[in-house]
Amino acid sequence: MNNEIRNILEEVKSGRMSVDDALLHLKDEPFEEMGYAKVDLHRKIRQGAPEVIYGEGKTVDQIIGIADMLTGHGQIPVLITRINRDKAERLAENHEISYNEHARIAIIGDMPEPDGIGTIVIATGGTSDIPVAEEAALTAECLGNEVERLYDVGVAGIHRLLANRDHLQKASVVVAVAGMEGALASVVGGLVDCPVIAVPTSVGYGASFGGLSALLSMLNSCASGVAVVNIDNGFGAGFMASRINHMEVRK
Amino acid sequence: MNNEIRNILEEVKSGRMSVDDALLHLKDEPFEEMGYAKVDLHRKIRQGAPEVIYGEGKTVDQIIGIADMLTGHGQIPVLITRINRDKAERLAENHEISYNEHARIAIIGDMPEPDGIGTIVIATGGTSDIPVAEEAALTAECLGNEVERLYDVGVAGIHRLLANRDHLQKASVVVAVAGMEGALASVVGGLVDCPVIAVPTSVGYGASFGGLSALLSMLNSCASGVAVVNIDNGFGAGFMASRINHMEVRK
Amino acid sequence: MNNEIRNILEEVKSGRMSVDDALLHLKDEPFEEMGYAKVDLHRKIRQGAPEVIYGEGKTVDQIIGIADMLTGHGQIPVLITRINRDKAERLAENHEISYNEHARIAIIGDMPEPDGIGTIVIATGGTSDIPVAEEAALTAECLGNEVERLYDVGVAGIHRLLANRDHLQKASVVVAVAGMEGALASVVGGLVDCPVIAVPTSVGYGASFGGLSALLSMLNSCASGVAVVNIDNGFGAGFMASRINHMEVRK
Amino acid sequence: MNNEIRNILEEVKSGRMSVDDALLHLKDEPFEEMGYAKVDLHRKIRQGAPEVIYGEGKTVDQIIGIADMLTGHGQIPVLITRINRDKAERLAENHEISYNEHARIAIIGDMPEPDGIGTIVIATGGTSDIPVAEEAALTAECLGNEVERLYDVGVAGIHRLLANRDHLQKASVVVAVAGMEGALASVVGGLVDCPVIAVPTSVGYGASFGGLSALLSMLNSCASGVAVVNIDNGFGAGFMASRINHMEVRK
Amino acid sequence: MNNEIRNILEEVKSGRMSVDDALLHLKDEPFEEMGYAKVDLHRKIRQGAPEVIYGEGKTVDQIIGIADMLTGHGQIPVLITRINRDKAERLAENHEISYNEHARIAIIGDMPEPDGIGTIVIATGGTSDIPVAEEAALTAECLGNEVERLYDVGVAGIHRLLANRDHLQKASVVVAVAGMEGALASVVGGLVDCPVIAVPTSVGYGASFGGLSALLSMLNSCASGVAVVNIDNGFGAGFMASRINHMEVRK
Amino acid sequence: MNNEIRNILEEVKSGRMSVDDALLHLKDEPFEEMGYAKVDLHRKIRQGAPEVIYGEGKTVDQIIGIADMLTGHGQIPVLITRINRDKAERLAENHEISYNEHARIAIIGDMPEPDGIGTIVIATGGTSDIPVAEEAALTAECLGNEVERLYDVGVAGIHRLLANRDHLQKASVVVAVAGMEGALASVVGGLVDCPVIAVPTSVGYGASFGGLSALLSMLNSCASGVAVVNIDNGFGAGFMASRINHMEVRK
Amino acid sequence: MNNEIRNILEEVKSGRMSVDDALLHLKDEPFEEMGYAKVDLHRKIRQGAPEVIYGEGKTVDQIIGIADMLTGHGQIPVLITRINRDKAERLAENHEISYNEHARIAIIGDMPEPDGIGTIVIATGGTSDIPVAEEAALTAECLGNEVERLYDVGVAGIHRLLANRDHLQKASVVVAVAGMEGALASVVGGLVDCPVIAVPTSVGYGASFGGLSALLSMLNSCASGVAVVNIDNGFGAGFMASRINHMEVRK
Amino acid sequence: MNNEIRNILEEVKSGRMSVDDALLHLKDEPFEEMGYAKVDLHRKIRQGAPEVIYGEGKTVDQIIGIADMLTGHGQIPVLITRINRDKAERLAENHEISYNEHARIAIIGDMPEPDGIGTIVIATGGTSDIPVAEEAALTAECLGNEVERLYDVGVAGIHRLLANRDHLQKASVVVAVAGMEGALASVVGGLVDCPVIAVPTSVGYGASFGGLSALLSMLNSCASGVAVVNIDNGFGAGFMASRINHMEVRK
Repeated sequence: MNNEIRNILEEVKSGRMSVDDALLHLKDEPFEEMGYAKVDLHRKIRQGAPEVIYGEGKTVDQIIGIADMLTGHGQIPVLITRINRDKAERLAENHEISYNEHARIAIIGDMPEPDGIGTIVIATGGTSDIPVAEEAALTAECLGNEVERLYDVGVAGIHRLLANRDHLQKASVVVAVAGMEGALASVVGGLVDCPVIAVPTSVGYGASFGGLSALLSMLNSCASGVAVVNIDNGFGAGFMASRINHMEVRK
Repeated sequence: MNNEIRNILEEVKSGRMSVDDALLHLKDEPFEEMGYAKVDLHRKIRQGAPEVIYGEGKTVDQIIGIADMLTGHGQIPVLITRINRDKAERLAENHEISYNEHARIAIIGDMPEPDGIGTIVIATGGTSDIPVAEEAALTAECLGNEVERLYDVGVAGIHRLLANRDHLQKASVVVAVAGMEGALASVVGGLVDCPVIAVPTSVGYGASFGGLSALLSMLNSCASGVAVVNIDNGFGAGFMASRINHMEVRK
Repeated sequence: MNNEIRNILEEVKSGRMSVDDALLHLKDEPFEEMGYAKVDLHRKIRQGAPEVIYGEGKTVDQIIGIADMLTGHGQIPVLITRINRDKAERLAENHEISYNEHARIAIIGDMPEPDGIGTIVIATGGTSDIPVAEEAALTAECLGNEVERLYDVGVAGIHRLLANRDHLQKASVVVAVAGMEGALASVVGGLVDCPVIAVPTSVGYGASFGGLSALLSMLNSCASGVAVVNIDNGFGAGFMASRINHMEVRK
Repeated sequence: MNNEIRNILEEVKSGRMSVDDALLHLKDEPFEEMGYAKVDLHRKIRQGAPEVIYGEGKTVDQIIGIADMLTGHGQIPVLITRINRDKAERLAENHEISYNEHARIAIIGDMPEPDGIGTIVIATGGTSDIPVAEEAALTAECLGNEVERLYDVGVAGIHRLLANRDHLQKASVVVAVAGMEGALASVVGGLVDCPVIAVPTSVGYGASFGGLSALLSMLNSCASGVAVVNIDNGFGAGFMASRINHMEVRK
Repeated sequence: MNNEIRNILEEVKSGRMSVDDALLHLKDEPFEEMGYAKVDLHRKIRQGAPEVIYGEGKTVDQIIGIADMLTGHGQIPVLITRINRDKAERLAENHEISYNEHARIAIIGDMPEPDGIGTIVIATGGTSDIPVAEEAALTAECLGNEVERLYDVGVAGIHRLLANRDHLQKASVVVAVAGMEGALASVVGGLVDCPVIAVPTSVGYGASFGGLSALLSMLNSCASGVAVVNIDNGFGAGFMASRINHMEVRK
Repeated sequence: MNNEIRNILEEVKSGRMSVDDALLHLKDEPFEEMGYAKVDLHRKIRQGAPEVIYGEGKTVDQIIGIADMLTGHGQIPVLITRINRDKAERLAENHEISYNEHARIAIIGDMPEPDGIGTIVIATGGTSDIPVAEEAALTAECLGNEVERLYDVGVAGIHRLLANRDHLQKASVVVAVAGMEGALASVVGGLVDCPVIAVPTSVGYGASFGGLSALLSMLNSCASGVAVVNIDNGFGAGFMASRINHMEVRK
Repeated sequence: MNNEIRNILEEVKSGRMSVDDALLHLKDEPFEEMGYAKVDLHRKIRQGAPEVIYGEGKTVDQIIGIADMLTGHGQIPVLITRINRDKAERLAENHEISYNEHARIAIIGDMPEPDGIGTIVIATGGTSDIPVAEEAALTAECLGNEVERLYDVGVAGIHRLLANRDHLQKASVVVAVAGMEGALASVVGGLVDCPVIAVPTSVGYGASFGGLSALLSMLNSCASGVAVVNIDNGFGAGFMASRINHMEVRK
Repeated sequence: MNNEIRNILEEVKSGRMSVDDALLHLKDEPFEEMGYAKVDLHRKIRQGAPEVIYGEGKTVDQIIGIADMLTGHGQIPVLITRINRDKAERLAENHEISYNEHARIAIIGDMPEPDGIGTIVIATGGTSDIPVAEEAALTAECLGNEVERLYDVGVAGIHRLLANRDHLQKASVVVAVAGMEGALASVVGGLVDCPVIAVPTSVGYGASFGGLSALLSMLNSCASGVAVVNIDNGFGAGFMASRINHMEVRK
């Protein structure tokens, strides 16, 4: 950014750029104004990841509009999360998509080759946590990661988890997805020495209070090396895991 | 109870008891009125356990008064919970007590011989949970149970727990005491086939919200065979465990 | 477990088992991998109770798949909880079931003969608590217990409860099911000398906050010998009661 | 009020009162301005009860100032609630008071003769609830009521309550004071046919959450004829009970 | 009750009653067992008010069954609350009812003549609170009270309330029904000298949290003489107001 | 008001007005009684803004009735908030309206000319916050304000907000509308020197708890000059902003 | 800001400023780095108000350090909020201050002349709310406003408020400070036509939950033209009121 | 682990190890039993980080005992968190420590050389957040990381943050520490492309509810690449950041 400013200033000094043009450049907005949305087209450069469309609360027309804008600028693949079947079908009329109804994710374009440090293991406490886990898995794959799924390994049958200890211990990042009492995160956290991203889910009833129980459990984990994202936020966990899995020396 | 009423009625019918005396008996209050307390003197018979004095919120004079009443009626041992050192010292001037400051428990009289079905194992997640665990242990011992302590076996280092699997699996009842995320109850619940009484503790900070996190975890345990008592309620857990450990055929 | 390891080691030593086979055995997973679930087939042996299928959040195909697996391995009866009529009808095309719509429970196979210590009494505060109570009752029956139902004995008309004192006092375990203010657990707890499992229900409105009021009441019960399960968790209460009702000497 | 306006208007019409005087009268403020407080001197007439000084959050000088103002206008007795020993001793230098440290209540002047419809019974669940109960009792007595105290009759030992059923059933109003699970209100509500004022107390620990548990219980009471005041609000309960106990025909 | 026991005992003594009969009488249950409900038939005598059927959570068959039982024993009128149109229509096939869809109340039989001390005024903050207010009004009328409705007098336009001050000040009891910030209770409480029953409603959105805001407001009312019932509990308020409005000397 | 009373008194004194007429005038109610509502017809004069109809919880007949009353008294424009399409269509049969389905607002009559101090800028964090923002914008326009919309400038892409710094800094009032973590209010508050009205929205999921997260954020804003309205309360924010934008010297 | 950039660019173009100097200027930080704080010295220009020192959580040395920095740059007066007596006395050794212990506010320098549009009226519900009100009042005065105090006008005695209606109606902004049920904001909001800033206080006990009750009340105010700041945030309210009271045309 | 088992089996097969010895080895507990604690001595190998002593809730003797055990086994440095001055002074009598009272951290032994991927930047919203930030910083340094501190860059003065954009964008991991509304995490998350660990602090008052506000904000962050630890959990954040900063290829 610094360099950019310096360059513009050099241009101005040399007379190759007028003051007004420079002013324009310095104020240049790296997003496209669409009225209902300001679509970020520099994000891939600035943040190493393309803009993602969060489908909930957007009309299908807004989703299509933003998708058009992104693909029109060569931003591929495009990940659309929290998009139900109806909207996905409407979107499919405009773009070639692959759609996973369970995870409510649509993807425009092909998955990239994995280029991360290692494998991201995504574990769930039970069968009902799979939709959230798939949101995490598809997000991570879409961002160029090798993903291994390890489903239904909740702590009530600890042998199921221990039997898969090898897989966990070879992971570069583990995403632990669990509802109810969310103890999976702590037990996994105690077994591995890589970062663990914990995702509480709203699976449960009564005193699970929509995922609050699992959320608090995970925040209070007695294991170190565990950080938490929002309830049911599979996308956020997949994204964070990908960031960690793409760490590189920068000094 | 039924028989008692029948007996009284037979007495009345036979003229051996006057109507007024019968009325008195039928209304007889199985407690001693002390103004600030109504001390239950039949409880041992009715409920199989002596009256326990909950020390918090009572003045030392009230505690001594109730203790006098109980011991005066031969109700020994007397368990006084949540009693701080100051009050305990005052009490010790009136009764011979053994006092555990950590657990804030005073006991008048000797511990009975264990006569339960088996051993009650009391496990804690960490070192800081020990005071609550001791409240449970002393209560259970006071009620005639063999108790085994298994401290600092929290799930973040699952091998510490697994290494003690034998102890757990030989228990007749397990009391699982843990703060923070309270995952101990679920993991223990998945390892044993005896009843598990879970005690959330207020150990923790921030989002543990005074034990709420552990409480919700335990209530949402994905393991079956787990039931929960109030936060920090070591007494309640010890009492419940003792009840279970003294089950007998009754048909 | 210890013995098993010793046996394998003896086999290895004697040369009757190769190192690789032993390794395989020691790592043998006592569950069947189904992708979306890891079905526990040793549970009956390990925990004294068959695997139960929690229907909520599972597709009907997943439920049928797990049921096939369990019955295929002779695990009968199979209890499926929280299964609505639609799924139950689909399941009935594959397995002979008895279905209780009220309690949302399906059972494959016959109820076993009761073989517990005594009778489990299941009491409710009101008529609206019956579905949860039936979940507890059917679970307990399915696990080999004699069950007695005592419905609509809430504390607002204490005489209804007192009139049934005999039934309560002959119970080996009482399950107290109540919504609203959940006072039933405390009053029952004060009347009996057997363990009481309290089940708060979401019956109520306004400040019952989905069962929170009853839950807190039961956790704060001033009666001893009461432990609590999650809101509306009839299954958990029935399971816990059964465990207690099958206590036996183990030293 | 209407009549007063009419009278003033008649006076104006007749010329006996100037327009400016009338204007003044119509705007006349029935309170004394003290800067930090506006003391209501017409309250006894308007509301049938004298102004009460809520001591918490007021400096002792403010309390004395208001007490001076009230007694100076003949408003006796004056009730000062939530006043600690230190402030009470300072107040005693200025006014003759009777002070109850337990209930943190000071009273200037003599108690009036009881003139209510009947007796107000004040019942507590335990010994620790007595300070709140005494705040209610003294308030009610100060407002001219016969009060009967019935302490430590919590539902865990229901026989203690039932043994006092007569006292309860002869009450004109019952004030039920209880912490922990607060079930007392429901059980009492089911036994009597007079209005019940329920006072949750902050007695308890853990999941009592400072009285929240008892508060929710009482609000969700399955018994009819129960209304609730704030946690620990003995004054409010005593005041409300007194109002009900002084009902009279007004048509 | 005492007298009853004495009478029975006298009968036994005189030989006019056998011991077995007496035993039966002393254990006589004043309710009818229906399996899913225990219908109280002595309630009118014991509590001065007939059994009321709370419709929510009951099947229409259960409602009809209980209504049959009550009317069959001459308990008329019968009040059925929280009953939706569908169930009401089914009920109307079996009983002659008047139905108020707004308040979701059905009544079997005629309203009694008002015989209370005075008039119960039912005030609401807004138009949306009317259904709850009507539940209170119809309940009170059903229990023999004169009711005056004062709707949409919320404090944001205080002149609307002040203009009706006369009506309020002539009431024997005021029921204040309000959602949102629930300030109506405090303002009314400051204007009148009769008991005020406050009913928070779930009217509102966002931070009203389903009536929690109004509930807390009313519990914290700075006006004395206000007691609170559960959110949306129009029935409870009408019942309580009726109790107060039927106070009579009993010493 | 004072002057009004003086005038009436002068009239009485002079004999030009009878005492009864004066009494009537002094009690004159500045609202129209409609049974289910008391419609305020003096509000425009008293409060500088017309009565607004809050549509939620009102039947369409009630809405039409109130609209008739207002327009019949010349109160135009009329703003109806929280009115769904169905009701709006019914209303449109009686009144000429413009309807914004997104914002659920109907307006009878023309928008007035803007006459405020400056421009109200309404900013949103994301696209999903637009309905609430539009409720604010239309309300403000309806009350005579120039409005500028600045949508989708959430803090996660801070450059989108900074690029619009000019617009923000020229505003006379900013309304900041955001869900999720609601940080927009703080960042905007730190950029401008005009009053900021913050509107939390219920946009989000999981731990946003229906807008609670954004609400708490905004209340805890570390920026000065920020005040908050209820979750999703676009109307309230638009109204408040208009008030501020119409400030004028009054001494 | 725009102009500044343009100027710098012009300088660069003309050669009067080197590229490096320009780069430096464009990155110039308008704050002073103190290690533990970054003190904003341009704030008065940028935001129309000086930096305020929030004393809580800062050591006295940090407070003095920041105060030195501010006064050293001529930023006077300096307002220090939430500073206890001990720290204030230490501060007084370094700066001439006026200190209000009640409001915990210290001020360095003289109060400016009021130059706002009108008068800010600060009203409290009770005597205990005065410290928060004084924080608001002193803040507003410190920012150049005329302030009128109207204390102890809570709604329980609505006549005290109505008697001061004139004062309220002449205000340019009203700050309504109240704890407990916080109804003051709604009632004031219905009486005036200027903006109302509501400040909930933590005054109260039990179900006031540290000010939560008043906060929710104020957020749910049925009166329009009310916006809310954090619990006990007198400073924020005074600041916001001052901003509104200094509105001026800007187009 | 697998290899270890294989080796043991090979030893047994070859006869070099007896069955009993093998059994012993397979059950070997990698921790030291101390009664009140089970000290993990293999942790550094298993998890890449030494055991840390959480000081809160442990007696000073327990802390010293564990420290002796760890240092006795060559586990240096030892990090002791949440240790107050008194305990630290006692500890200093037994071990050479460096103590930071602000952060309540004691360290035995020297800090290791930084060997991570890059620099961990630790940013705070305000001055009061520094203790928590220091806990994170010292933890990270103790685990071999280069740490850069960036304090008091809260979003209310966004220019302070933007002026430090370079530092942030060169970080390998950012730890964002903030109380009040916790918006720092979102804004930082939008500026950088490395993982962000967010630490809510309990700094604030009123509706910050002990850090709940900041916690919810951070969980709901609209920026991607942000994960959250418990309130005030500086240690957890420093530990997690270190893990990420030590990522290496593992396939």
